[in-house]
Amino acid sequence: MARSFVPACVAASMAMLMVSGSPLALPAQTPATAAASAASATLTLMPVPSSMTLHDGRLGIDSTFRVAIVGHSDPRLERAVQRFITRLARRTDLNLPHTVARTADSAQLVVHAVSAGERVQGVDEDESYTLESTPQSITLHAPTTVGVIHGLETVLQLVDGTATTMFVRSVSINDTPRFRWRGLHLDVSRHFEPVDEVKRTLDGMAAVKLNVFHWHLSDDQGFRVESKLFPKLQELASDGDYYTQAQIRDIVAYARDRGIRVVPEFDMPGHATSWLVAYPYLASQPGKLELRRGWSGYGETFDPTRESTYRFIDRFVGEMTTLFPDAYWHVGGDEVGSKIWPQDPRIAAYMKAHGFKDSPALQTYFNQRLSKILTKHHRNMIGWDEILHPDLPSATVIESWRGTKYLGAAADAGYRGILAAPYYLDAMKYADVGYLADPLALTDSTSLPANEAASVLGGEAAMWSELVSPQTIDSRIWPRTAAIAERFWSPQSVRDVPDMYRRLRVESMRLEALGLQHETHVDRMLRSTMLDPSWQLLTPLFDAVAPVTLGQRIHARRTVQSTPLVQIADIARPDPPLRWTLQEYVSDILTNSAKSAMANDSLRAIFATWQKLPAVVTQVGATSPVIAQGGWRAAQSLAAAGTIGLAALDARDHDKPLPQSWIDEAQKTLTAIDRPQGILHVVAVPAVRELLTGTITPSAGLH
Amino acid sequence: MARSFVPACVAASMAMLMVSGSPLALPAQTPATAAASAASATLTLMPVPSSMTLHDGRLGIDSTFRVAIVGHSDPRLERAVQRFITRLARRTDLNLPHTVARTADSAQLVVHAVSAGERVQGVDEDESYTLESTPQSITLHAPTTVGVIHGLETVLQLVDGTATTMFVRSVSINDTPRFRWRGLHLDVSRHFEPVDEVKRTLDGMAAVKLNVFHWHLSDDQGFRVESKLFPKLQELASDGDYYTQAQIRDIVAYARDRGIRVVPEFDMPGHATSWLVAYPYLASQPGKLELRRGWSGYGETFDPTRESTYRFIDRFVGEMTTLFPDAYWHVGGDEVGSKIWPQDPRIAAYMKAHGFKDSPALQTYFNQRLSKILTKHHRNMIGWDEILHPDLPSATVIESWRGTKYLGAAADAGYRGILAAPYYLDAMKYADVGYLADPLALTDSTSLPANEAASVLGGEAAMWSELVSPQTIDSRIWPRTAAIAERFWSPQSVRDVPDMYRRLRVESMRLEALGLQHETHVDRMLRSTMLDPSWQLLTPLFDAVAPVTLGQRIHARRTVQSTPLVQIADIARPDPPLRWTLQEYVSDILTNSAKSAMANDSLRAIFATWQKLPAVVTQVGATSPVIAQGGWRAAQSLAAAGTIGLAALDARDHDKPLPQSWIDEAQKTLTAIDRPQGILHVVAVPAVRELLTGTITPSAGLH
Repeated sequence: MARSFVPACVAASMAMLMVSGSPLALPAQTPATAAASAASATLTLMPVPSSMTLHDGRLGIDSTFRVAIVGHSDPRLERAVQRFITRLARRTDLNLPHTVARTADSAQLVVHAVSAGERVQGVDEDESYTLESTPQSITLHAPTTVGVIHGLETVLQLVDGTATTMFVRSVSINDTPRFRWRGLHLDVSRHFEPVDEVKRTLDGMAAVKLNVFHWHLSDDQGFRVESKLFPKLQELASDGDYYTQAQIRDIVAYARDRGIRVVPEFDMPGHATSWLVAYPYLASQPGKLELRRGWSGYGETFDPTRESTYRFIDRFVGEMTTLFPDAYWHVGGDEVGSKIWPQDPRIAAYMKAHGFKDSPALQTYFNQRLSKILTKHHRNMIGWDEILHPDLPSATVIESWRGTKYLGAAADAGYRGILAAPYYLDAMKYADVGYLADPLALTDSTSLPANEAASVLGGEAAMWSELVSPQTIDSRIWPRTAAIAERFWSPQSVRDVPDMYRRLRVESMRLEALGLQHETHVDRMLRSTMLDPSWQLLTPLFDAVAPVTLGQRIHARRTVQSTPLVQIADIARPDPPLRWTLQEYVSDILTNSAKSAMANDSLRAIFATWQKLPAVVTQVGATSPVIAQGGWRAAQSLAAAGTIGLAALDARDHDKPLPQSWIDEAQKTLTAIDRPQGILHVVAVPAVRELLTGTITPSAGLH
Repeated sequence: MARSFVPACVAASMAMLMVSGSPLALPAQTPATAAASAASATLTLMPVPSSMTLHDGRLGIDSTFRVAIVGHSDPRLERAVQRFITRLARRTDLNLPHTVARTADSAQLVVHAVSAGERVQGVDEDESYTLESTPQSITLHAPTTVGVIHGLETVLQLVDGTATTMFVRSVSINDTPRFRWRGLHLDVSRHFEPVDEVKRTLDGMAAVKLNVFHWHLSDDQGFRVESKLFPKLQELASDGDYYTQAQIRDIVAYARDRGIRVVPEFDMPGHATSWLVAYPYLASQPGKLELRRGWSGYGETFDPTRESTYRFIDRFVGEMTTLFPDAYWHVGGDEVGSKIWPQDPRIAAYMKAHGFKDSPALQTYFNQRLSKILTKHHRNMIGWDEILHPDLPSATVIESWRGTKYLGAAADAGYRGILAAPYYLDAMKYADVGYLADPLALTDSTSLPANEAASVLGGEAAMWSELVSPQTIDSRIWPRTAAIAERFWSPQSVRDVPDMYRRLRVESMRLEALGLQHETHVDRMLRSTMLDPSWQLLTPLFDAVAPVTLGQRIHARRTVQSTPLVQIADIARPDPPLRWTLQEYVSDILTNSAKSAMANDSLRAIFATWQKLPAVVTQVGATSPVIAQGGWRAAQSLAAAGTIGLAALDARDHDKPLPQSWIDEAQKTLTAIDRPQGILHVVAVPAVRELLTGTITPSAGLH
């Protein structure tokens, strides 16, 4: 094997078919898929239900499969069932009729909801369901339509196949979410995302039972909603990239159909340049402003001292509440410059006259006014950490971008909170990092006290979009967000990382089947970059690298809004599956598991492939600066890692330990490789280091 | 090499990096990409311009690149330039400003149009342009904005790269299309295609300079346009899948921005069930009708004997002309049942009273009435073959689905024509088949006489949608349509198939970069089908199979509208690139070219991979009936082909001819394999047969 040039993506799969280096000897009795062969009690469900029991037996699915809706029904529930039938048909290759029965007699899936649930889905919506699957039928029971919507996703995740038929396993599930607020925050200001991208994001959210789409609709870089009262917002401050009111209504309805609330965020008084470009009289500073094109924060603000500001906001909120029915309105409130207001003589005089000792005090005044306006319009306020102040209404929610301890402070002040800090997708952390970050954890070993924990509504994954385009968004959000969604839904005790990665591999493909494009992302980007079949030779490189963290990338190469996001870090995935596969192989070898020989062969093939990467990058990069300049250091590093890995395997196999001096040098090399290689990060170091030292490091996943 | 398990997709690329089986010895001086290394005079342009001259020299592109618009400008031209800048930025990884100069001085690309062109683009629009690229600048000159739109696509196709920079080659191009009507026909009735799919189809069309989007909007299976005058059309006859009038306007504007006319087709008097479901009084037959769900034709018709029918059509056309500004209106007119009308006593009496001897005579009367209505609304009639009759207005255009000779007949009757017959994409012919089918050719060696040829406006690729879903449409249309587009645009003499395939590989990736999803199609479908990483093991199977022809597929497994199109033939591509690669390898070997040793190694690797496919399908198919049942026969066939291929190579290499009896048996096996294997067709037979016989067959591409 080691002699041939095999992309690592393929090598990983090949291992399944290989026995001790002889690819011809196929172990014919081994089931092909991890999905099917999983003896795991969690099957391939994601998120894992709060309670489930596996039974023997299966319900075969054929073209006689029928759904019945008994008990309550409503158009939303019926549409959910129709979508379910379409997806089940595509999953099973069966022509299933879309007619729905009203009695259980002749149906294989019986859906029984008690009520429609809340007219506008809220934080107290009952989202629970029970599922009883037997060899005769499946019964899905839920107090509300939202519970049914979640349960139908679970049924689809239970579908599996043999060579001749498709089936649903027998299982009893009693499921309810751990947290009531399970969100995805999407910034569409720094880079706009068209309606289609938003809709497929909502599809993905529904698949993993997220229930809040937090939509960051304005910031310094652009205003993204059509206002009929204040049309200059979209005319002067959007570059033409905004949602019409009809599109907003369409998206809100689309989300509601999937059990998802839409919480709009209009950031103020800071991160406000776009408003002020459109309506300069709102600004603290005089003079003409332009949309920000680069990174921003602590910049231009609303003028909190003028009544005209509040009249504007009042009318604006009144208009927008006709589009956004949710009970919550996100005011942003983050990163307001501390020096701006005192430096303006007029505002400084106002502050003095009214006894505001500093900018935060003035911002609190602004928030109180804002809060009154929201109350008038029957909306509760939610905002980032900075808005916390004891005088706000008790229904106010604090979203923390700084950590769980701030939620404790909010709880002490009587407010509920949600956590975003560890779930920033643009930080480019691996899936297991967000997965292991509990919303209630203060440190690795301590949690919020129970009285404070009770105030934590949940959490949000956050996709800020300085470095996200419509072409790359899926690959930045998915599949990592599926792991975070499980953290928000499943019991606190569900934190088996290997099992999570086993299920995430399957869920990731399910999401691609749903229309998301994160799995095909690298190949598509490489085709676009290379315009030549030789792009395939780069697969082993992109299997083993990730984008550097946000800070590292900004440091290496500053971008602005118009920078095309086709750099090598935009091609790379944040958590390439091979990283975890390497960990598994090394674990198999170091524990002398039954799979160690296969793991050894696979690793050797992968390491040998890495050794050739510098030549590949030189050759394939001959027509592409993106590849030649962006990939060179990572290719060199992987070649070095491959050499170290092969030496470590040889030493182990021949029982001839490497000299300590060689090991020391190799360790130094690995440390150097583990640093940013341009805007790429080589994900291979922990596994190779473990092989070298013979020791498994528990937290190898973090970077 | 032959010992390792290497997917054929990878093997093809590997060959580039291999010297006589030693993958470590990289020929570092060989440029990596076919695009860059092409000494060909056609570079990677598609379609090939009518006249071009290559020069030495290159214009480097960096972030100082600017575009100037001099001479005429208009919003359409400016939008085209903005899109060009965005695409160039993405192609080059450069942050290019979108500001456009108005003088040539400081610009690297100078765009000079003379006029906007026709207010509504018509068949006589001047689409020509000239392009002069030097090391200092590029000048694009065109009589109209449409010419500029085409020329900008050419500029993008001229962009290439080195390891450190991107550039445009120096070249002089004088380009004008051979045919004025270069269409893509899209049926959205059998299966609906949402707005996004239509728009990306239009993007693809613009990239290869097609200029007519022929939109088949009604048929027995569904009516797809919102009518405000006759709302039951969408309410009762669309299943909710239709375009709103706002969407139609949006798409028409989107097309016009790309130099594409939109010709609507509302098929009548046959293929008309959807109209009659909505408004039964229009029908020849009494009684309640339902939308057709299966295959159809020669079914329900409009009643041509009632004045109410013509009043309806008159009002409908009047409404629709506000949406569709094109001068042409396609009436369909195909496959009208010959027995329906005479069997109805009332209609039979009418025919007798008015002297219509048979159904075609009555249809002619209908067409004449229809034609008068269209004339009143300032529209010219276009229809399928069957509408041909001497009494129609001279501006009428005949579209032939039966062949070029019918265009001759139309020309003799004084009408112009366009050809669709050889360009039916659902027939699943390879790209070279449509490519070599000249619109003027009567047979392989004879063409229409000049007087008749002058009446041929062009041709249309036709995508009927019985077997097309939004998920599969890109892979059915592309990249084959790019080859057909070249047939319509480039000089008749441009028909070098190897050169076409060389350029098509590049163009196919350019189309994927533009947002089309045909290149990633197979991988996406396999992920969705398998939900397991083992899908990658199936790549060699799908590299070597295509869907059977339309007729063969219907014969094997009848589908209806609701059949999910996730069968194994829907995963397969119509013309997998490996087919042509195999032909090239065999040609290299049989001609003892410089590349014959490399070709030998590559073929051995591919054949060895095929031999393992039955085991792969058994194993990977263990959880998937689609794979296990659908792929088994093709896997067996490819294994047999691989064995024959390896034996033929061995015989050649060792100069030991195979026994004639063995060859005879192998020929029989190949003949059997060349027949449908379920709903798949193995594309490998011609290449293996050539290797076996030592003879290259010129028309090996056809099946």
